[in-house]
Amino acid sequence: MPEGTIGQNFKVSTGPLPASRKVFVKGTKHPDVSVAMREIDLTASSKEKPIRVYDTSGPFTDPTVTIDITAGLVPLRERWIRARGDVEECAPRATRPEDNGLAPGEVSTVPLFDRTGRKPLKAKDGKSVSQLAYARAGIVTPEMEYIAIRENLGRENLKLDPTGESFGASIPDICTGEFVRDEIARGRAIIPANINHPEIEPMIIGRNFLVKINANIGNSIVTSSVAEEVDKLVWAIRWGGDTVMDLSTGKNIHTIREWIIRNSPVPIGTVPIYQALEKVNGAAEDLTWEIFRDTLIEQAEQGVDYFTIHAGVRLAYIPMTAKRVTGIVSRGGSIMAKWCLAHHKENFLYTRFEEICEIMKAYDVSFSLGDGLRPGSTADANDEAQFSELKTLGELTQVAWKHDVQVMIEGPGHVTMQKIKENMDLQLKHCDEAPFYTLGPLVTDIAPGYDHITSAIGAAMIGWFGTAMLCYVTPKEHLGLPDRDDVKDGVITYKIAAHAADLAKGHPTARERDDALSRARFEFRWRDQFNLALDPETAEKFHDQTLPADGAKLAHFCSMCGPKFCSMKISQEVRDYAQAGMDEKSDAFRKEGGQIYKVLEGKAVAIE
Amino acid sequence: MPEGTIGQNFKVSTGPLPASRKVFVKGTKHPDVSVAMREIDLTASSKEKPIRVYDTSGPFTDPTVTIDITAGLVPLRERWIRARGDVEECAPRATRPEDNGLAPGEVSTVPLFDRTGRKPLKAKDGKSVSQLAYARAGIVTPEMEYIAIRENLGRENLKLDPTGESFGASIPDICTGEFVRDEIARGRAIIPANINHPEIEPMIIGRNFLVKINANIGNSIVTSSVAEEVDKLVWAIRWGGDTVMDLSTGKNIHTIREWIIRNSPVPIGTVPIYQALEKVNGAAEDLTWEIFRDTLIEQAEQGVDYFTIHAGVRLAYIPMTAKRVTGIVSRGGSIMAKWCLAHHKENFLYTRFEEICEIMKAYDVSFSLGDGLRPGSTADANDEAQFSELKTLGELTQVAWKHDVQVMIEGPGHVTMQKIKENMDLQLKHCDEAPFYTLGPLVTDIAPGYDHITSAIGAAMIGWFGTAMLCYVTPKEHLGLPDRDDVKDGVITYKIAAHAADLAKGHPTARERDDALSRARFEFRWRDQFNLALDPETAEKFHDQTLPADGAKLAHFCSMCGPKFCSMKISQEVRDYAQAGMDEKSDAFRKEGGQIYKVLEGKAVAIE
Repeated sequence: MPEGTIGQNFKVSTGPLPASRKVFVKGTKHPDVSVAMREIDLTASSKEKPIRVYDTSGPFTDPTVTIDITAGLVPLRERWIRARGDVEECAPRATRPEDNGLAPGEVSTVPLFDRTGRKPLKAKDGKSVSQLAYARAGIVTPEMEYIAIRENLGRENLKLDPTGESFGASIPDICTGEFVRDEIARGRAIIPANINHPEIEPMIIGRNFLVKINANIGNSIVTSSVAEEVDKLVWAIRWGGDTVMDLSTGKNIHTIREWIIRNSPVPIGTVPIYQALEKVNGAAEDLTWEIFRDTLIEQAEQGVDYFTIHAGVRLAYIPMTAKRVTGIVSRGGSIMAKWCLAHHKENFLYTRFEEICEIMKAYDVSFSLGDGLRPGSTADANDEAQFSELKTLGELTQVAWKHDVQVMIEGPGHVTMQKIKENMDLQLKHCDEAPFYTLGPLVTDIAPGYDHITSAIGAAMIGWFGTAMLCYVTPKEHLGLPDRDDVKDGVITYKIAAHAADLAKGHPTARERDDALSRARFEFRWRDQFNLALDPETAEKFHDQTLPADGAKLAHFCSMCGPKFCSMKISQEVRDYAQAGMDEKSDAFRKEGGQIYKVLEGKAVAIE
Repeated sequence: MPEGTIGQNFKVSTGPLPASRKVFVKGTKHPDVSVAMREIDLTASSKEKPIRVYDTSGPFTDPTVTIDITAGLVPLRERWIRARGDVEECAPRATRPEDNGLAPGEVSTVPLFDRTGRKPLKAKDGKSVSQLAYARAGIVTPEMEYIAIRENLGRENLKLDPTGESFGASIPDICTGEFVRDEIARGRAIIPANINHPEIEPMIIGRNFLVKINANIGNSIVTSSVAEEVDKLVWAIRWGGDTVMDLSTGKNIHTIREWIIRNSPVPIGTVPIYQALEKVNGAAEDLTWEIFRDTLIEQAEQGVDYFTIHAGVRLAYIPMTAKRVTGIVSRGGSIMAKWCLAHHKENFLYTRFEEICEIMKAYDVSFSLGDGLRPGSTADANDEAQFSELKTLGELTQVAWKHDVQVMIEGPGHVTMQKIKENMDLQLKHCDEAPFYTLGPLVTDIAPGYDHITSAIGAAMIGWFGTAMLCYVTPKEHLGLPDRDDVKDGVITYKIAAHAADLAKGHPTARERDDALSRARFEFRWRDQFNLALDPETAEKFHDQTLPADGAKLAHFCSMCGPKFCSMKISQEVRDYAQAGMDEKSDAFRKEGGQIYKVLEGKAVAIE
């Protein structure tokens, strides 16, 4: 789709997933809290109750909502934010051509999002408007109650799986608003929720909650348009993206970001140094604190929920990367390293860290403290540079907390399996249990084109060990920009990793869907099996490639084995038999046994 | 391709992978041992030496060999086998219509492989012809020397990675013929190598060697042909399949198997009970020891290298599956369970186990003791049924070893992450370190369509913990029969899991390829990055989707970040700078810094 066509002609993916409905669970402490969940209906004859699943897709899958990208989403949180009485509208920072990478006087080819009548909010002087500040003050905000209900999926009487192993996490049977508050106050979880992004459905990132995933989108200098990026956002959350990072680096990034935020029900993260670098035409050595500061305010006023800030790339650590196989592979990290060397000065993100905290505090923007020195190859994993930076991130966490600013910590990268747990253990230790947010890690370097898989192995493991959010990797990693299919592949792959981690930790809401799907599989309820799958469309398509007929979806066997070899079918006979007692039934079974197959073979002939 | 067209018209994939040559390393103890490896050439300007990688593809990737499917491969091992003087030609068992699932007098539509002049071999009376027997007698066979050279990839001065964690494995720095012999004698590894399959290039399965992967192929009652199955075999080994199991269950399985074995340079495994069941028209209760015994001989004479035998499904364990969510999901396991219940008798594979050993010993067929009671859902993992059977498999291992028959043990299945290690630990304990061969395990049930990924997570972990061979799972698992693309996806995914396990264990030959690829990535040698990848074609295709021009493969940046943001490029500057010392260089760097980007931006404009 060419640029400039956003508007009525521009379509994103809407409508419910198969057999799914939106249900809403009301708050009790805050009656205007209404938490959206997805409920999957199973075939009536199964007598199984519907399965509720966590729903990141926002209003886009709600058939009762008319989606208008040009108007943006309904600002769900606006009343809550204003009701607290601690914010005020402020005169917005004027948008400048360089915000979009344009020369003075150059006109953008990209349509603007109409912000008429919307003024940015800011904390009143002396007020602390972060969820951390409220939590410390003992307040269970509507956001916190929303999250408590959402994490339980509206269920009561949940129990932690006693066979789970959570490596010292403290997951409760039931997640209450008070539990959420306590975890936020402790710094062990964050709610990324800028007061200027009232459109979000609140979510939490912390090791005592469901493991979350992030999807990266963003245009680059080489390719992509506004329409594509908004479409990718909607597509990513349709399949389960919990947050989305806009990593745009080309032109029009201010405008693209506005479209994304106004249409996003999930928190949006950015790396502000990317835009700051555009403002100095890509010359890292020309970056200044003033330009960076102005960029933070620009993005905070738009509503970015978390900022990746590479404040841990200290001057003294840079020489530690010289002997690495792949040096510095974080973009932000390399930009700051270049600045430090050019000026032979300490990283200004480090020296100005308290000022950065003051800005972020005024909008409740959360830190994602960037791991600028993460390993870009397994050879460089767990080295001095990486762990020195991690210690610094721990020190900065304490500073941010002092300012009531929420913090999570970014982690690697490329790490072979035996070195993954050390990353988690040191992060918990150095960063005082602030949530960990890792990119993979990739457990080998030799599979470009399949790095969603190399990284899902590491992601599942580190998620199990305690990482709170997993940043997806798509099949295009190291090779090119992800398209729509890659975004979906990345999201589904990371939902697998995150869910596998929840199961292994024994999370109370994790097992129900697996068991419902396994029962459907055992009972040959093909439709239910598809509908309960993370990706119903692909499951059905794959089934139909071998047995396309509609009748095959009623067959009591599948294409892999055919009727004679169907272990599930035989197993059901075995179950009936074993439960009825074994001795007296031997003869009867033999007589009946042949008959079951005759019936089945009749069906088999019909569909072959 | 329709059935019956096999022959001159039938093409399989031949020719080398990109930038790859076959190299051969000669034996020293056995001078006629000549071990094939793949050597990947890197761009001359890099001054990097070629990288040797383990090559499973056999003569199909050797441009000097003329491939003729109708003639089969050259019988590499024939001289070795006959030189030992302990085998004799025997009158072959006559092929019967029921071997191919045909009615008496029915003519097959499938062309026969021409066996004129080939008689099956069998051990002379009183002789033990298994690699285990030779190893116990202190003999380093040509097969063992072949394997030693192959595992080292022809390299000298190898060292175990000291940061590896192998959970008590005993991987040596250098793999010698004597080490191979010792591991075989100890039962800790097997060389699946039927004396009637002289075409194989010997390989080993054991936890002190490289982790191997198996690919399943096979027609079913519902679909597929001879030509397709041979093509899948060649395709599976092209991408790295170490062994292939022929799980055919439909008609013509005897004939298909002959085509497969004669054209396979890798060991072939089967589940003989599938064919036996065809011979009794699918009525499990009609199975007899005599029919099964005859099937074993039929397949052993053809050259099957290992048999999956579900001898551990004991009558007493069957009721333990009654309360499972998914009962018995192993086809072989459910067939035997049905037989046991119908007759109310102990499994004849268990009661006749010593007789089975006698047959397999005469041809050096290895056991793959089947886990008929493996869990088919994560809910059923690690239960009483599963571990009761595992103990029995341990007892049977001792019996097989008494008869000089090589043994590996099959393992699950569906297992959440926190329960995986227990599987490995109990297997090592109960089965006295006989090699473990697992299917996945899948770490969640909710992703049909993506079970290559759910299972690769578990496979990488259990491979790290000590599993010797990983049975692949394709994206079609639970849904349909894998096609060519699925076979490739399954194989590449499992190569990732196996290699990740080797890296984590610190295997001496594992790291070199990762580091070579990482250096290529850091130095923007795109071609080298593709050629070193597990799947060069996909890596290049993905790159070209964003930056299609040929010039882009020389670009010193990539499509993800563009030239301004290229962390690798900046990092190279940082490296130069840091190494030269920091203080005095600050000014010089600032002057030079801008210039690098000017050059790069010039290039960027040219290719955008």
